[in-house]
Amino acid sequence: MKMLKIINDLFYMPRSIMGEPSRQTLFYIKKLVNEIKILKFRSGTKAFDWIVPEEWNIKDAYIKDIKGKKILDFKKNLLSVVYHSMPINKWINRKDLLEKIHSDDSLPNAVPYVTSYYRKYWGFCMSANQKKKLKSKKYFIKIDSSFKKGFLEIGEYFKRGSKNKEIFFSTYTCHPSMANDNTASLALQIYLIKYVKEKYKKSRFSYRFIFIPETIGSICYLSKKYKVLKKNMLMGFAISCVGDNKQYSIIQSREGGKLSDKALEAALVNKKNLVRYSYLERGSDERQFNWPGIDIPMTSFFRTKYGEYPEYHTSEDTFGRVVTKKGLMGSFKIMKFSIESIMKNYYPIATVFCEPKMDKRGLYSYLSFTEKKFNYQRKYIDFMIYSDGKNNIDQIAKKIKLNYKISFKIFKLLLNKKLIRV
Amino acid sequence: MKMLKIINDLFYMPRSIMGEPSRQTLFYIKKLVNEIKILKFRSGTKAFDWIVPEEWNIKDAYIKDIKGKKILDFKKNLLSVVYHSMPINKWINRKDLLEKIHSDDSLPNAVPYVTSYYRKYWGFCMSANQKKKLKSKKYFIKIDSSFKKGFLEIGEYFKRGSKNKEIFFSTYTCHPSMANDNTASLALQIYLIKYVKEKYKKSRFSYRFIFIPETIGSICYLSKKYKVLKKNMLMGFAISCVGDNKQYSIIQSREGGKLSDKALEAALVNKKNLVRYSYLERGSDERQFNWPGIDIPMTSFFRTKYGEYPEYHTSEDTFGRVVTKKGLMGSFKIMKFSIESIMKNYYPIATVFCEPKMDKRGLYSYLSFTEKKFNYQRKYIDFMIYSDGKNNIDQIAKKIKLNYKISFKIFKLLLNKKLIRV
Amino acid sequence: MKMLKIINDLFYMPRSIMGEPSRQTLFYIKKLVNEIKILKFRSGTKAFDWIVPEEWNIKDAYIKDIKGKKILDFKKNLLSVVYHSMPINKWINRKDLLEKIHSDDSLPNAVPYVTSYYRKYWGFCMSANQKKKLKSKKYFIKIDSSFKKGFLEIGEYFKRGSKNKEIFFSTYTCHPSMANDNTASLALQIYLIKYVKEKYKKSRFSYRFIFIPETIGSICYLSKKYKVLKKNMLMGFAISCVGDNKQYSIIQSREGGKLSDKALEAALVNKKNLVRYSYLERGSDERQFNWPGIDIPMTSFFRTKYGEYPEYHTSEDTFGRVVTKKGLMGSFKIMKFSIESIMKNYYPIATVFCEPKMDKRGLYSYLSFTEKKFNYQRKYIDFMIYSDGKNNIDQIAKKIKLNYKISFKIFKLLLNKKLIRV
Repeated sequence: MKMLKIINDLFYMPRSIMGEPSRQTLFYIKKLVNEIKILKFRSGTKAFDWIVPEEWNIKDAYIKDIKGKKILDFKKNLLSVVYHSMPINKWINRKDLLEKIHSDDSLPNAVPYVTSYYRKYWGFCMSANQKKKLKSKKYFIKIDSSFKKGFLEIGEYFKRGSKNKEIFFSTYTCHPSMANDNTASLALQIYLIKYVKEKYKKSRFSYRFIFIPETIGSICYLSKKYKVLKKNMLMGFAISCVGDNKQYSIIQSREGGKLSDKALEAALVNKKNLVRYSYLERGSDERQFNWPGIDIPMTSFFRTKYGEYPEYHTSEDTFGRVVTKKGLMGSFKIMKFSIESIMKNYYPIATVFCEPKMDKRGLYSYLSFTEKKFNYQRKYIDFMIYSDGKNNIDQIAKKIKLNYKISFKIFKLLLNKKLIRV
Repeated sequence: MKMLKIINDLFYMPRSIMGEPSRQTLFYIKKLVNEIKILKFRSGTKAFDWIVPEEWNIKDAYIKDIKGKKILDFKKNLLSVVYHSMPINKWINRKDLLEKIHSDDSLPNAVPYVTSYYRKYWGFCMSANQKKKLKSKKYFIKIDSSFKKGFLEIGEYFKRGSKNKEIFFSTYTCHPSMANDNTASLALQIYLIKYVKEKYKKSRFSYRFIFIPETIGSICYLSKKYKVLKKNMLMGFAISCVGDNKQYSIIQSREGGKLSDKALEAALVNKKNLVRYSYLERGSDERQFNWPGIDIPMTSFFRTKYGEYPEYHTSEDTFGRVVTKKGLMGSFKIMKFSIESIMKNYYPIATVFCEPKMDKRGLYSYLSFTEKKFNYQRKYIDFMIYSDGKNNIDQIAKKIKLNYKISFKIFKLLLNKKLIRV
Repeated sequence: MKMLKIINDLFYMPRSIMGEPSRQTLFYIKKLVNEIKILKFRSGTKAFDWIVPEEWNIKDAYIKDIKGKKILDFKKNLLSVVYHSMPINKWINRKDLLEKIHSDDSLPNAVPYVTSYYRKYWGFCMSANQKKKLKSKKYFIKIDSSFKKGFLEIGEYFKRGSKNKEIFFSTYTCHPSMANDNTASLALQIYLIKYVKEKYKKSRFSYRFIFIPETIGSICYLSKKYKVLKKNMLMGFAISCVGDNKQYSIIQSREGGKLSDKALEAALVNKKNLVRYSYLERGSDERQFNWPGIDIPMTSFFRTKYGEYPEYHTSEDTFGRVVTKKGLMGSFKIMKFSIESIMKNYYPIATVFCEPKMDKRGLYSYLSFTEKKFNYQRKYIDFMIYSDGKNNIDQIAKKIKLNYKISFKIFKLLLNKKLIRV
């Protein structure tokens, strides 16, 4: 399965909002999807209320004890430093070091993920258990990092349809070495691009997928493109944490009730492990797209939402422990259906007056016994009673209490039998 | 009580969708309501997607054992054959016979009611207990039935009012020898016609009542009349299974919120044994009237809905066991109120500014003690506070939490006292 | 605290709908609020459906036993007579007297409050325990009351703002010698006038406060003023029973959803002891203001609603037992916020596109740790996401689940930081 390969390839990279590993990540994606364009925003560029900072790069980082033994090694665990730490290279006593070490008591073997993008700072991250073992009086510490003017980079895939109206996806590239947050989403989005390219060669709608660093990336992107998106976007999805198989999660757009909200809800009909979070619980790029004045309604999709699984933002967010094949494929199916639901947003109309004689068409059993068990015969008629030209397939699916997939099958059958038209 | 007499007279008749017993049923109804007209649809006539089939008639049917003893006798129990069985007259071995016998294990003493209108078939129905006793190796079976070109017949009562706008009722005539389903509804509809004739001699609205075979009957009727009904119908009710006293049941019209839905809901305010079924649970002629394109919004009224009582479609659906006087009279009252609610769909307006001085009008007790018990004094005022010309009596009744009947009494009293006008 | 002084001063006065004690009550209020005008309605004046009755005054009332000992003394307990009793002065036997004595078995030590405004009547009130002790065969009874043509009087405070649009308060003056019902409300309304005078010296809106006898008073007032109120009133509150600290109670205006309903709801956000009563449970002057045709939407505010606390309408409705300082101050705060909520009914608009960089403005902590605890940083952003010019502060407060007070503080901070404009 290709998504696993992508996750594997992208896992061990110290991605951040800007810098070489982010550039390599986009380069990797562009190798898989040749049409991707790279948008660049120079350090110092103003984007609404923000200014693009300098690039941060890191060659190495470690802590050695008094005997010269590495007791922390960035190369072994890419979460071992606070991201965007200033360079450091010195002996430090134990007490001062402890103040610079971040750990998480609730997961004593996990290394937490910490960043300090906009304040000068340096620090290390280790597991609570490792931290307990720090007994030396002195340590030698090194962070071989550097800042320089450079570029914030965004990858954008755009496929033009016969209409300007577009379907839009966004996910973020700035997280290092964690599987669910957010390597899995990079893999899913690549997979979705390949799916759309193949499935909708000549499509009515246009498609846009972007790969951005969180927050500063969406703000930069919007500063260039919000007018065109506002004009053309039909549905927008912010996806992240799409790899586990525990729940399905959704945050509707700011006001709710938009096409993307409906499409995703339709795709999730009958999912028992669906959790709807309030817009107040948003936390990623949906914050920028839905901002008042920007008003690009974006629906957020996750399996287990960020912050809601114990391994979140730690070294334990790995494939196997959090991300699974099943989880990824579940997300893929939901996204596929969400796209389909608008591609095929038909409003069927019944072609015959009164119930059709179903037996003539091989769609009915003859004897009049009362049947308690579920049967499709009945659902065919149910579908037709709402085929009044005012309900689309999604809406009918909800009214007759079937999921979209089965409803769409019924739709195709009835269309084929000329019992409905579109 | 007349309804019981009608049920008794009509019970022992092997009615079906077409044939002599149906004809006799309409003839009997016409004797009671002279104005009824009979509409005829010849076998072979096309009605939308359907074709009127041949008439089916049956003279006799039985099973004899090897000794010549009748162990099943159609004349003793009219449900003993599958309705629309082909004629048969032969010896049959036990095993082959068993395949042709329908019974119902959940009600081991009941003979189930089975039909096969549109597929060539023959069969018998007996109780599960009778079936167990079939020990002979061979049986002689006879079904003396016949098919012929003939007519589907519909009885229609129409009373013209000063307006074309009409109130419409429909029930079905095609069920044999069962009390609740549907002899009771025939009786109730006859009773309602008599009531309307007497009560509304010179009425504003027109009234229409039809007696039809289910499905094919409503389809034939609509193929001739749907345009006039669509134009003129104010409220439509499909009634069936109106004879028991266990619950009140309602299925709103396809979209809900129509006048008939509101009228019936108003009539049922405060009924504790009210069950509302989804339109997905429809099962009778409301299916045709509410069909998209036909769009004649029809509300279904039942006591216990078809399929929801254990004796449904069996020989145990009898007067006494299922249908009771109380049940019938309950249905009659609800239908009467439903009609009244539109006849008297007034929007009262309070005539005085601020609360009236009720004592001047003999409507108040003087001492100021706090009263906890329910009192009408209070309800008179409550009625007036919503008499703003925007609420009709039904709506006020709901707001002040009284049933329509008492609200209507208050309405009349206040009108009489000139505290409101219409 | 001044409210307590007012309650104390006004407690021991046999107020009624008309008469000297009511006049003295208004005189006392006018001493505190010099701008108050007294409106007079002569006995015999027609007001809509009502006629202003005669004044009732009482000098003394008592019951003496056969030995001349006073066993009931109006001067000791002002609730001891039925208000508006006719004069009486005679010997009476025990049995006849008992019929004229009102008591309340549910509160055996309390003297109930009884009136008979519109029917000629006389009677005494005593506690159930006192009543049991009446063993003499004969008693001498005296009610030294009198009726005469006079005036119904209303106190009105009006403060003109730069706009005619006004905020309106009403409470009733007709209840004697009970603390929560309604001496506390007189005190609160005086306090609110003083507050408005001081706080809103040059105000946009006008303010009107009236002190009226219940029912006949609001009817008289409306007969003169309903057109101007209907035209100008923005928000109206009927207040009573505002002194206890048990619950907060509200009855929305007849149709609900009016500005006063919203303002009061906003003020009561997060109150756990809030009880909403249906408009059907109204009982005071809101009945007249909300009457159809009058249509001056009035919201009722109480702590524990009349009729809902055991001491209601008895001599046990006292300061200490029912009314408390905390209760009064709670009411004062709610009324203050209700006024403010319209004074400051701003619709903020975010000034920057996308989330602002909060750290630049000292509104953000830098490290990226996931924080579970409540923090205002987050709420600042939450406030801005709904600052789209379509939500006022109240509405935003509800959406982001903060009370009005804190939301207003955030509003002021963000305005100050120029992150929103109005």
